[in-house]
Amino acid sequence: MSKTNPGNFFEDFTVGQVIEHATPRTITEGDRALYGALYPTRFAVPSSAAFAAASGLAVHPVEELIGFHVAFGKTVPDISLNAVANLGYAECRFHRPVVPGDTLRTSSEVIGLKQNSNGKSGVVYVRSTATNQRGEVAIDWCRWVMVHKRDPEAPAPDAVLPELAKVVAADDLVLPEGLDFSAYDFGAAGEPHRYDDYAVGEKIDHVDGVTFTDAEHMLATRLWQNTAKVHFNTEARPDGNRLIYGGHVISMARALSFNGLANAQLIAAINGGSHVAPAFAGDTVYAWSEVLDKAETPAPGVGALRLRLVATKGRDESMTLRNAEGKYADGVLLDLDYWALVPR
Amino acid sequence: MSKTNPGNFFEDFTVGQVIEHATPRTITEGDRALYGALYPTRFAVPSSAAFAAASGLAVHPVEELIGFHVAFGKTVPDISLNAVANLGYAECRFHRPVVPGDTLRTSSEVIGLKQNSNGKSGVVYVRSTATNQRGEVAIDWCRWVMVHKRDPEAPAPDAVLPELAKVVAADDLVLPEGLDFSAYDFGAAGEPHRYDDYAVGEKIDHVDGVTFTDAEHMLATRLWQNTAKVHFNTEARPDGNRLIYGGHVISMARALSFNGLANAQLIAAINGGSHVAPAFAGDTVYAWSEVLDKAETPAPGVGALRLRLVATKGRDESMTLRNAEGKYADGVLLDLDYWALVPR
Amino acid sequence: MSKTNPGNFFEDFTVGQVIEHATPRTITEGDRALYGALYPTRFAVPSSAAFAAASGLAVHPVEELIGFHVAFGKTVPDISLNAVANLGYAECRFHRPVVPGDTLRTSSEVIGLKQNSNGKSGVVYVRSTATNQRGEVAIDWCRWVMVHKRDPEAPAPDAVLPELAKVVAADDLVLPEGLDFSAYDFGAAGEPHRYDDYAVGEKIDHVDGVTFTDAEHMLATRLWQNTAKVHFNTEARPDGNRLIYGGHVISMARALSFNGLANAQLIAAINGGSHVAPAFAGDTVYAWSEVLDKAETPAPGVGALRLRLVATKGRDESMTLRNAEGKYADGVLLDLDYWALVPR
Repeated sequence: MSKTNPGNFFEDFTVGQVIEHATPRTITEGDRALYGALYPTRFAVPSSAAFAAASGLAVHPVEELIGFHVAFGKTVPDISLNAVANLGYAECRFHRPVVPGDTLRTSSEVIGLKQNSNGKSGVVYVRSTATNQRGEVAIDWCRWVMVHKRDPEAPAPDAVLPELAKVVAADDLVLPEGLDFSAYDFGAAGEPHRYDDYAVGEKIDHVDGVTFTDAEHMLATRLWQNTAKVHFNTEARPDGNRLIYGGHVISMARALSFNGLANAQLIAAINGGSHVAPAFAGDTVYAWSEVLDKAETPAPGVGALRLRLVATKGRDESMTLRNAEGKYADGVLLDLDYWALVPR
Repeated sequence: MSKTNPGNFFEDFTVGQVIEHATPRTITEGDRALYGALYPTRFAVPSSAAFAAASGLAVHPVEELIGFHVAFGKTVPDISLNAVANLGYAECRFHRPVVPGDTLRTSSEVIGLKQNSNGKSGVVYVRSTATNQRGEVAIDWCRWVMVHKRDPEAPAPDAVLPELAKVVAADDLVLPEGLDFSAYDFGAAGEPHRYDDYAVGEKIDHVDGVTFTDAEHMLATRLWQNTAKVHFNTEARPDGNRLIYGGHVISMARALSFNGLANAQLIAAINGGSHVAPAFAGDTVYAWSEVLDKAETPAPGVGALRLRLVATKGRDESMTLRNAEGKYADGVLLDLDYWALVPR
Repeated sequence: MSKTNPGNFFEDFTVGQVIEHATPRTITEGDRALYGALYPTRFAVPSSAAFAAASGLAVHPVEELIGFHVAFGKTVPDISLNAVANLGYAECRFHRPVVPGDTLRTSSEVIGLKQNSNGKSGVVYVRSTATNQRGEVAIDWCRWVMVHKRDPEAPAPDAVLPELAKVVAADDLVLPEGLDFSAYDFGAAGEPHRYDDYAVGEKIDHVDGVTFTDAEHMLATRLWQNTAKVHFNTEARPDGNRLIYGGHVISMARALSFNGLANAQLIAAINGGSHVAPAFAGDTVYAWSEVLDKAETPAPGVGALRLRLVATKGRDESMTLRNAEGKYADGVLLDLDYWALVPR
């Protein structure tokens, strides 16, 4: 019997099934440095140990997306190796900062299944949980993917569709222990804009663009131990292009959003996200944001902004999400809905 | 007189000569992160400090090939700057894990010399030893390289051909202090296959492929302080290509072999190796392995597999090493023979 | 009002103005590893913790240029986002080694202003100071840049031209606390040449060349949090090329100079520098040096060499700085004047 991993197919999943994903991974200062080399990020909390300490954090955390990508990458060999598409995310919460020395592992529970009408594939819903070496929950999230069936004749399972929150309620956000922005240094952080300066409905064009290269997105994707073949192998797609990992687009857009959202220091939750179009080397990515909601928090000086982060291929100064037919506008690559913690 | 290093030529070497190589180098967590960005490696021991501790290791080691490449790179300016070709390796043993904070330095003894019949070059055999900051041996190995003569008229030295073992005997493998796989977590490691599941003669197609880029192989080669010009300079070869450092191919193939050999956690020895053909950016590399031998070890729960690791340009599902004439099959880039430590 | 940073224009600066630059950044071992992956550097002090300790340094410093690039990068959003050109550097001194764990922040004082005769731009002179988390000065330097006016009709300020030293006097060099080369290990460092072996007027061709890639210079430039658009975005210049950050050329040339200046372990000061021509991916860069001056120092066994470091596109074995008309010779990319500390 073959010793290599063929991945799971649609009929391999059952509701209630729990999968312990392989290869726990220790986060280090090397990851922080590489993240800063791969993305133009300058958020003061992850950039500066001194700023983090002044914000009440006992240990200098890395960016939330480092933890997210690592934790997410663990699920790929079991959940999405045979995926047709990543359909969505929901209910992603960051329960505690990830710090150098933490070892993350991830498990997933199948929470929903629905075969497609064509009988060739189906949608698998999982809730994944990343824990650290002390067994504490670091991150959890739901996602749903369309997965091929191995055998189109295999019987369809009973359809189970989980109820997923469209948005993580502000009251359910987990605030990092000790977080305190009451003595926040706006000069060091790079911008004067605070919670009260952002209005629901406001849009921000982040101006800057970065042109992707193959070497960089492969470095990033390997760093997260994400093994999906299409990211690395020019022989894996008919067009000979290496598809850029969607998380690379997320991190690039988040880093670009510094210019206008420099004080959106920490990501508390991801409410949902769509990878609208594929990205390839040579594409130049820009970003814009929209303020969707605001909420106060119990942490001193800390407010939460619910933000839509949109990555586009080519700059769209009009910041148009959808065209007249209600479909995503040309050029939109990513539509991400998240909660950020900002000084009040 | 010129202050730059012209490298040594064949007539500069004498049997018994000992060369202390320059630029000791400290290994850090940054090296671990970069290694994980450059190669799709997921072996649980170097990936996870928690897994390493559960395997009895006092400190979290980096991959053996990080130590090997660094130690090997030190020898280049003195041994192979004027090399025509790297001809082979033998008797490479990993004497103790390399951990962040270790400073490696390397010395080499010339153990053999043989001028070629054309009088223009000769083969130099060296035994190299890398030691850490406490003077403990970390790695040693033999290699032989064909080196240009400075002066074709220089007299030939007496030929001395060292006796080198074709294979490191299983009894001579050095096991990391404390290594214990008796409570091995196969779920965390990623595959269920243990020592008894591998049969001598078995071949494993590792399935996945990675397309090389120039930026990545240069990053890797510099990281190991390997200075051979052909890897970095498009003006160094008539075809304008940058030749990929052979160690980059080794590390890529080793990482690809995770898929089917996820439990081959540690490299204990390299018995031999040939860089069969050059590799360049744009080539897509795949790997397959063959189990050559097996041996029990005194460490609890630990067995040793002797493996042939073959890297190919383009996937060869037939896993053919040699063609009908007994020569390496088209597409073979690397043929490496090594001992790996696996759970029993 | 827009929340993004438009940068400052010429009329936004006033003499005496002090600007606290944003985003303090903590240096880590990850930065050391990435620096070694990006540049072929092998200087023994930053490469080896053991060598640094044997040289009397309490903590293992990173290369001076890591600190310089990080500190310099902080100034870009405020000083040179709208710059036409970086015109020069002067009086850069390294006051103490930067070590992992240090958090650097930078402030700048405007020390001079002169509007150009065309009325469309002007030259801004600043003295910038990088301090660590204890408020100690790590690096300071002056630079002057040509900056666009927002409004060509804005009145010209009174011209103020600072007096800047052409060279940091040898007596003003700051020596790292404890530095002692009296037991210097020339074998480990890689070359036998000491202070007395270098003569004023001597030129050294560093022989080796490296061909630039876009991925690598972008990784480097982001690592230093340098945000200038032209380095990252193919849509930012009419020719579609990404301009390589001048500091990338400095670091590459400095690393190449190892071959002939392996004992120029530490940079004590930068007297001046000109980015003579732009560099792009595909260019192959070489370097040569000229000894401009020498000075003894009070540190045991430590001398100082004042060196001109010249980077060229394509190798120039004639080491010609200027052509018959007194202009920089074709192919010269960089002309940097600095003080290095060497063993006596």
